[in-house]
Amino acid sequence: MTQKIEIEEKVLSENDKIAAEIRKRMKEKNIISLNLVSSPGSGKTSLLEKTLSELKDKINMALIAGDVQTENDANRLIKAGGNMVKPIVTGGACHLDAKMVAQALNEMNLDKVKLLFIENVGNLVCPSSYDLGEDMKVALISATEGDDKPLKYPAMFRRAGIIVINKIDLLGLSDFDMDRVKKNALQINGNLKIFETSCRTGAGLDKWFDWLRNLV
Amino acid sequence: MTQKIEIEEKVLSENDKIAAEIRKRMKEKNIISLNLVSSPGSGKTSLLEKTLSELKDKINMALIAGDVQTENDANRLIKAGGNMVKPIVTGGACHLDAKMVAQALNEMNLDKVKLLFIENVGNLVCPSSYDLGEDMKVALISATEGDDKPLKYPAMFRRAGIIVINKIDLLGLSDFDMDRVKKNALQINGNLKIFETSCRTGAGLDKWFDWLRNLV
Repeated sequence: MTQKIEIEEKVLSENDKIAAEIRKRMKEKNIISLNLVSSPGSGKTSLLEKTLSELKDKINMALIAGDVQTENDANRLIKAGGNMVKPIVTGGACHLDAKMVAQALNEMNLDKVKLLFIENVGNLVCPSSYDLGEDMKVALISATEGDDKPLKYPAMFRRAGIIVINKIDLLGLSDFDMDRVKKNALQINGNLKIFETSCRTGAGLDKWFDWLRNLV
Repeated sequence: MTQKIEIEEKVLSENDKIAAEIRKRMKEKNIISLNLVSSPGSGKTSLLEKTLSELKDKINMALIAGDVQTENDANRLIKAGGNMVKPIVTGGACHLDAKMVAQALNEMNLDKVKLLFIENVGNLVCPSSYDLGEDMKVALISATEGDDKPLKYPAMFRRAGIIVINKIDLLGLSDFDMDRVKKNALQINGNLKIFETSCRTGAGLDKWFDWLRNLV
């Protein structure tokens, strides 16, 4: 196992090198990049669909959509108006790594892009370890998946700058407690900025859109 | 990367060896074992809580509850009446492996046990690769997390014997389509047995309990 860990450390340091190159390149191009992470089905693609619909005429956005299999998410984002959407099918890998992202970026025309979204594989554990050269990780959590998630998957919430608590239209239909999830998240990372949204009803999305507009 | 893959294959084959020992030992003791896998927050612990409440006087059950951090799930299971509950805190690892399970089993008195539940880390990707010596993987999917999950995370559904579609009380409140998720799951694995449950309302749990009673 020691051998495995050493090799993994080597892979991660190789990853960090590529991530640093991506970060430098994005900075030169004045592109802000956000790495969206969450459990499967928390609403990453839905949030990006809504964001495209709202902001596509105001902000030039590029999107990378990672999945273990299928290009379903990328197709949804194209349908929502994304004119620069690049799917990455990991073919089994449980996370995106910097090399995959660098390759995808090489195939995209980033000249006018101001904002890059990277939608990671749905997984609340492994993507936390892989720097993709993003400016910030945005962790989604849905109001149906349990308010103790920040405590049980702390690495992700420690490394995120933002959490989006999504599906708030379903609050009250489970034991999920909004105050408790916030308390748990802030206990892990006191600097987290928190949004509360429902991609279904649109509730709370305005604040997210405003924040993005201010960002770029 | 080749080197990493080789090491991983070695780790997996070491894992399979330990898993085979667990399987042999469980067979000798006449214990049926189920490995519960799902996204974070699909309801693995809730299903086990309900199962303990219903069957604890009829079937002698042991439970292993895996989490990246916290013993929250194990504590919930003890509160629900589990008198043989063993937590495994992986401390970062994204899955249980056979070695962790073997160690936990060594510390449990299995003499009268008929049914062993192993609650895996909430992760729809990595736990699919690790045989824990179980008789069957039971994959949960909640009716709020998207009906294309079997297509996007096929390995898990290919290796499962059963899927439990949970939170059916929330059907109709999202785009989740029951027929579509079943079709998608059966497209990946035509042998899947499917249960539909709500741990919140109790709907559908009787069939699950009946199936467990018949199993032991």
